[in-house]
Amino acid sequence: MERAPWLFWGVVVFLFSPICEGKVHYHKWKINYQSWAPDCMQVQVISINGKYPGPTVRAQVGDTIVVELDNQMATENVVVHWHGIRQIGTPWNDGTPSMSQCAINSGETYIYRFVVEKAGTYFYHGHYGLQRSAGLYGSLIVDPAGKEPFSYDGELSIILNDWWHKSAYEQAIGLSSNPFVWVGEPHSLLIEGRGKFNCTTVSADNSNTCNTTHSQCSPHVLRVKQGKTYRLRIANVASLSALNFLIQGHKMTVVEADGHYLEPVEVDNLDVYSGESYSVLITANQDPANNYWAALNVRGRLPKTPTGLAILNYLPNPSAELPTSPPPPSPLWNDFAYSKALAKKLVALKGHEEVPPRQSHRQLVFLNTQNKINGFLKWAINNISLVPPPTPYLAAMKYKIRNAYDTTPPPDVYAPRNYNITVPPPNPNATEGNGVYVLRMNSVVDVILQNANTLTPNNSEIHPWHLHGHDFWILGYGDGVFDPAKDPKKYNLVNPPLRNTAALFPYGWTALRFKADNPGVWAFHCHLEAHLFMGMGVMFAEGIERVGRIPRSSMGCGLTRNKFMRHP
Amino acid sequence: MERAPWLFWGVVVFLFSPICEGKVHYHKWKINYQSWAPDCMQVQVISINGKYPGPTVRAQVGDTIVVELDNQMATENVVVHWHGIRQIGTPWNDGTPSMSQCAINSGETYIYRFVVEKAGTYFYHGHYGLQRSAGLYGSLIVDPAGKEPFSYDGELSIILNDWWHKSAYEQAIGLSSNPFVWVGEPHSLLIEGRGKFNCTTVSADNSNTCNTTHSQCSPHVLRVKQGKTYRLRIANVASLSALNFLIQGHKMTVVEADGHYLEPVEVDNLDVYSGESYSVLITANQDPANNYWAALNVRGRLPKTPTGLAILNYLPNPSAELPTSPPPPSPLWNDFAYSKALAKKLVALKGHEEVPPRQSHRQLVFLNTQNKINGFLKWAINNISLVPPPTPYLAAMKYKIRNAYDTTPPPDVYAPRNYNITVPPPNPNATEGNGVYVLRMNSVVDVILQNANTLTPNNSEIHPWHLHGHDFWILGYGDGVFDPAKDPKKYNLVNPPLRNTAALFPYGWTALRFKADNPGVWAFHCHLEAHLFMGMGVMFAEGIERVGRIPRSSMGCGLTRNKFMRHP
Repeated sequence: MERAPWLFWGVVVFLFSPICEGKVHYHKWKINYQSWAPDCMQVQVISINGKYPGPTVRAQVGDTIVVELDNQMATENVVVHWHGIRQIGTPWNDGTPSMSQCAINSGETYIYRFVVEKAGTYFYHGHYGLQRSAGLYGSLIVDPAGKEPFSYDGELSIILNDWWHKSAYEQAIGLSSNPFVWVGEPHSLLIEGRGKFNCTTVSADNSNTCNTTHSQCSPHVLRVKQGKTYRLRIANVASLSALNFLIQGHKMTVVEADGHYLEPVEVDNLDVYSGESYSVLITANQDPANNYWAALNVRGRLPKTPTGLAILNYLPNPSAELPTSPPPPSPLWNDFAYSKALAKKLVALKGHEEVPPRQSHRQLVFLNTQNKINGFLKWAINNISLVPPPTPYLAAMKYKIRNAYDTTPPPDVYAPRNYNITVPPPNPNATEGNGVYVLRMNSVVDVILQNANTLTPNNSEIHPWHLHGHDFWILGYGDGVFDPAKDPKKYNLVNPPLRNTAALFPYGWTALRFKADNPGVWAFHCHLEAHLFMGMGVMFAEGIERVGRIPRSSMGCGLTRNKFMRHP
Repeated sequence: MERAPWLFWGVVVFLFSPICEGKVHYHKWKINYQSWAPDCMQVQVISINGKYPGPTVRAQVGDTIVVELDNQMATENVVVHWHGIRQIGTPWNDGTPSMSQCAINSGETYIYRFVVEKAGTYFYHGHYGLQRSAGLYGSLIVDPAGKEPFSYDGELSIILNDWWHKSAYEQAIGLSSNPFVWVGEPHSLLIEGRGKFNCTTVSADNSNTCNTTHSQCSPHVLRVKQGKTYRLRIANVASLSALNFLIQGHKMTVVEADGHYLEPVEVDNLDVYSGESYSVLITANQDPANNYWAALNVRGRLPKTPTGLAILNYLPNPSAELPTSPPPPSPLWNDFAYSKALAKKLVALKGHEEVPPRQSHRQLVFLNTQNKINGFLKWAINNISLVPPPTPYLAAMKYKIRNAYDTTPPPDVYAPRNYNITVPPPNPNATEGNGVYVLRMNSVVDVILQNANTLTPNNSEIHPWHLHGHDFWILGYGDGVFDPAKDPKKYNLVNPPLRNTAALFPYGWTALRFKADNPGVWAFHCHLEAHLFMGMGVMFAEGIERVGRIPRSSMGCGLTRNKFMRHP
């Protein structure tokens, strides 16, 4: 059983809480920079209590998690988003700056408090600037009150990531500069915060040290015993890369995604997009005299990054005993047919998940384009690039603060409807915006994500879209332009998977449905860190009148300052 | 006359103001990162309205300056300090985070409004993290209502700086890391934002371009006409370096420092410490067929940085015509005797400057030491390293907000009094603190800055100390340990210079006197950007009960949030 480490990774205190029946798990986190060598190159990462990745947060359904976050970084604000947690009743604790709360200033403490209402594999991460890319993330696991619909002997957990030596801060400045400064392909791929960079390629004038024998970059070890079956939890927090994960010689049976059960699907390797989480079952049924590689590769972009490696260690073999043969390759990076076929295989476990309503009340069609604004490179949805305002939407909408954001809603569909998705935009210029899609409370909303060509001819990218505050059903994927007359007839309304993240494939469309049943203001955005930073997102709001009293601690910035500060 | 450019460098609108008799100068600034090549290496600098350095702000004594500052940086807070402006009646606009105001969040706008009450050569600069080092600075010039006590035909203005290619943000993270990451000696020295790096030394894998023909790094040109006399205004915003400035073949007559008149002193070259400003008169009395070098060199540390160069251009020679001989050298970097002799020569112009009170009411003795705290490298005063709190002192003190800072005052003198300043501290550990020296309103305060050995044997550094909200008289400089019985007898009480910045020389002491006559909370700190960042400062407060109503816009962070936010 691999459940022990979480006990050591945080100060977990069980307190009596009069508010709910579950337990209260109290964590005190100090956020700061820390020298670390995730891929053997020493850089400064954002650490929690001096460690990278952050501690695993674990609770049972119905429990309350309290994180007292002390921002000890000298000059950076911070927020933490609890990815996959719907924040029912606590929309101010979704951890999104300009949206749910004011970013937590350097030197200040903020208390996140929320109930986990659904079992599953989740994670948390920074959501300010590119702080997720700087290392601010960790696992969040919610255990069910009863039994899972599958059985296993032990549990393992990994977070996948891509990694650069240039700081996330530098990356952010580059992304928002003209001329655009591109960070390039990742230096390394990390499994549970560990990778291996080829230090011999580092030029001598680099002030940071690169040392392939550093303990912080020894491969992550997944310890198993022969004949046993393990639940391996996998999450992807990558900034840029679609990833493919496999374990040499071992099939994986996918049983859970984003906190929802799936019909078991056996795969040789698994595409995992940024923002997604999975549970797979693996059985240690190979020659126990050997260890085996767990391998991570880039999909969807021409890979220039070496395979990320961890070790499946058959006990009692030494974990340092490397596998005798190289790992098998992942599918070709541009074999999108493979990726789409795999995505379509993932359906909800019969009898365990809610089925979608037959009809929706509103359909939104979101054209994904790469654009320019005043010469700056941006991403836009229906030609609007999201620039969140300084006043958090939640407080602005709840307390009707004027001039906090554009009250003209953005368009439900893109124009012109005959837009040619196969070529670069004829007029590359988009506009900045911060309007909100206001959804009727408890209405059913369909979102069609429509991909298109970027500014580069013959190029269209994968975008993993993540919805805050809700899960959605993935009703279907298709190639080319979505046809509103024909394509909905092919929707899977029987057993579509419930997810919080869905891939949009190059030149294709992805159809989603969700119930707008969670009072609050919620971001829906491409989970690639750079893409959101460059405007690839929209805002949804529903049931604002039902939002409870927003804590003062989440306000104080923007127009909330003038609205609520009485003068002494 | 060289006064014209300031007209173009800012949007200067003269408005009628009912509050004061002077004019109101309105500026609208957008602060953002911008690709720039100050020394030919393209980096991201913090720009104002797309330019680096920032626009010159100019006004006449009694005028009001209004700067509407729009922080367009994606993830950085910001403040701007108006260096040398006392902010009488507007202590909340001193531009110091944690002290006078809450840092201005990304995406927000703040309005600085203050009266300039004294003619002189000033400047403004970022005061959050190391943003000054990132390029956030510019000139601030206040003209007298009447005549100056010296005459000249034209005016020129330059700001001196040291420069690195590694971003200020990276530098800040390194300074606050354990192990300490030192940025190293500067790559270049800049005169008015221009220097020249040897691009051939840049490794090929660097993603940024280095181009010695870039127009942004062509040398700054000081245009003169034969036979004319010019007032050259010089300020130093260096992060690290003490600098020496000279003009080939031309003597300089020092006539003003930090907004106060000096007895004219003719020099071949001038030491300028970070935080200082000077006016020197130069006469174009050399062969007009040639141009001449203006040259900048590092003092006080073994120089590893090439001379910074500008061109004194005798019109109508082409400015691109380089001088025919190299510039003369500055004094040797470790010729401290030269520096001290020069400092002692600078005295107040008789009849034009206030003389100090004969006695002080209180004496503070500040031992300057380099220390460790929990393994982190720090600087400390009387063994306390300043860590400013999240709640600005001004609001905390004015509105008696509890627990905002340590209300136990720090010690007036260091202990033990027999501390050996000639060796590294026997116990290198200091403590963090944020207490305040509360000064009686209108009392006269003496500060003795006492230098000591750093953590490195046989090493003591120059520290240029800068006082906010006041000017001080420099009563004397001495070597070794200050003797309270004997040394005050040697004070210059006749014509000591009034300054806002004074050098503390290695292993020596510097004695200052000032009147605590400006209601507010004021920082007094080493002006080396890294040293303040590492704790080398103290806080003074006086007349808090006389501080006016603090604008809401300067609050909203820390405990001001809970104190003043009424709940909707």
